[in-house]
Amino acid sequence: MSIPTDRVTVALSDRGYDILIGPGLLGQGSSFDSLQGQGDSSAVVVSNPLVAGLYKHRLLEVLATRYRQVLFVELPDGEAFKNWSSLDLIFEFLLKAHCDRKTVIFALGGGVVGDVAGFAAASYMRGIPFVQIPTTLLAQVDSSVGGKTAINHPLGKNMIGAFYQPLRVIADLDTLDTLPDRELAAGLAEVIKYGPIADNAFLGWIETNFDALWSRDKKALAYAVKRSCEIKAWVVGQDERESGLRAILNFGHTFGHAIEAGMGYGIWLHGEAVGCGMVMAADLSNRLGLIDEAYVDRLTRLIERAKLPIHGPALGADRYLELMRIDKKSEGGEIRFVVIDSPGRASVRPAPDDVVRDVIAAHTA
Amino acid sequence: MSIPTDRVTVALSDRGYDILIGPGLLGQGSSFDSLQGQGDSSAVVVSNPLVAGLYKHRLLEVLATRYRQVLFVELPDGEAFKNWSSLDLIFEFLLKAHCDRKTVIFALGGGVVGDVAGFAAASYMRGIPFVQIPTTLLAQVDSSVGGKTAINHPLGKNMIGAFYQPLRVIADLDTLDTLPDRELAAGLAEVIKYGPIADNAFLGWIETNFDALWSRDKKALAYAVKRSCEIKAWVVGQDERESGLRAILNFGHTFGHAIEAGMGYGIWLHGEAVGCGMVMAADLSNRLGLIDEAYVDRLTRLIERAKLPIHGPALGADRYLELMRIDKKSEGGEIRFVVIDSPGRASVRPAPDDVVRDVIAAHTA
Repeated sequence: MSIPTDRVTVALSDRGYDILIGPGLLGQGSSFDSLQGQGDSSAVVVSNPLVAGLYKHRLLEVLATRYRQVLFVELPDGEAFKNWSSLDLIFEFLLKAHCDRKTVIFALGGGVVGDVAGFAAASYMRGIPFVQIPTTLLAQVDSSVGGKTAINHPLGKNMIGAFYQPLRVIADLDTLDTLPDRELAAGLAEVIKYGPIADNAFLGWIETNFDALWSRDKKALAYAVKRSCEIKAWVVGQDERESGLRAILNFGHTFGHAIEAGMGYGIWLHGEAVGCGMVMAADLSNRLGLIDEAYVDRLTRLIERAKLPIHGPALGADRYLELMRIDKKSEGGEIRFVVIDSPGRASVRPAPDDVVRDVIAAHTA
Repeated sequence: MSIPTDRVTVALSDRGYDILIGPGLLGQGSSFDSLQGQGDSSAVVVSNPLVAGLYKHRLLEVLATRYRQVLFVELPDGEAFKNWSSLDLIFEFLLKAHCDRKTVIFALGGGVVGDVAGFAAASYMRGIPFVQIPTTLLAQVDSSVGGKTAINHPLGKNMIGAFYQPLRVIADLDTLDTLPDRELAAGLAEVIKYGPIADNAFLGWIETNFDALWSRDKKALAYAVKRSCEIKAWVVGQDERESGLRAILNFGHTFGHAIEAGMGYGIWLHGEAVGCGMVMAADLSNRLGLIDEAYVDRLTRLIERAKLPIHGPALGADRYLELMRIDKKSEGGEIRFVVIDSPGRASVRPAPDDVVRDVIAAHTA
């Protein structure tokens, strides 16, 4: 049975763009139809060695028929390289190749490639067009949608970056076939996230279709990616620059970022930290009297089923609090948590330190 | 006679902001009225040793009555430090001080401080508010208005940056009292520029009032800064991201950038290179049959009167052409020049290499 290409539109005040979702997209010419600047401009594909080995030639072949020249830059693989050196590696390449403002960057890879290449596009000559081609589930449902780009600073994750929207997102579901189980699980964490914050019926759908998702059934994946992108597009369309609503997309991320930073980046995958962070944030919501324990248990079981951790590392409550205070959502030194107000509805608020300490004590090994 | 504060509004699609022009502004509380985020947020002043020595205390005193805390970061002085290290120095300071998204950056200095601090504001946590307090004539009439921020890359000037608008520009004319003559001249280059590209009557006004400007008469300076800002605001309001019209503000800059890069940044001041570049661009306009020789002579005489160079360094035509090909205006390897179509009107277009070579031959020592 063939699976048709889905299209989700991100509607922004000054312009909108499409997310294409389906199998085989990155090798299909039609995925690149009517993109700006074809013919007389250059295409620069940014990727990492692993992803490039699998998909580079297919993509380069399609782009070669549409751009004046197609160039390729390889970044070292992994969160540890989401830094200034990787960014500068792209800048140096673009400058040496005399790339002008009409050059289009194609980010082929997971969240790291998308974030670094996206920020490079945002700041090269003060902004050139770019296209996201996410090859992990996490990037397809979260990081490549919504225009957040960034690099890490030694003193904080994603601290340096830009809100910069792509021309298009091309989510080729076939790239998920080669994804390690651990990364599939990390992506599922962000898929699960959309249930409690925005669509509780979707949480039920994930529970019902969990086995199909886990076995990478394309039809199930197509729906999960599409529904996730729809929810994210709806949120981002209302609050592109995260002045309010958009912050709910960070459910589980306040605790999660503290885990990632406390362990050292790259030890836990981002999605793993978010999975565990959601358990903690749900428990916090319960302790604040917002949701019942049964809902916390339900979410915890699903996260466990996705082979994601539900206990955080024993960093000590002081260290957790210290790390959370430098979160980008914190204001005037006050940590702000995304909490579940009721199943399918979230908001951002501070919480008393002692309640947060209880949550940390209950969920760290 | 007291000089009233002038106000020029930059009208942009999503929001506008004001440029305040007058003597004594940086020490006046009212200059900071109704700026966003007062009371509960931090103010971070970014400056360099020379400017800080003159104006830091006055500014910090005023800000201290309006912000929760006022912090100060010093960058090394000069174009050579308009780079990643200076940017990172700001990031590290902000992160160590736990500065959040409501922190307001105040850029106190010339173009280098404004460009680096502005790009830091654009990319710290994906964007925090900032205010420009330009202390050179060049920054007051050009670099602090219009939202261009950038750092240099070893392979090209202003290659990495963002379009990011300030909350306000505060142009205190008293800061021009301490400006070295050479920097006053460099600023006058950008003032003169607005005549041929947009307002030929203003060119006449500059000629008539040249001695008053040169002796730093406040009333003359107030008008020159105001008219320059009005023209720039009008252009930027129509084309914020330089997709068309805005490029005319780069009159003299294509040749000028080649001079700066070819000599090594910091040998000639930017305004000196632009002064000489305008002579060359005017000559090019004449050779393309657009304006007569008398107008080229008139402009050349005024530039000479401002003690700006009218002959470029002998880099050789090949080197000039090579350097100009990496200009941000070039497209597909074709150099695009800002030319004068008629006195007070400019456009951007390519030019035959042999005509450009003739211009270079005629104007290099």
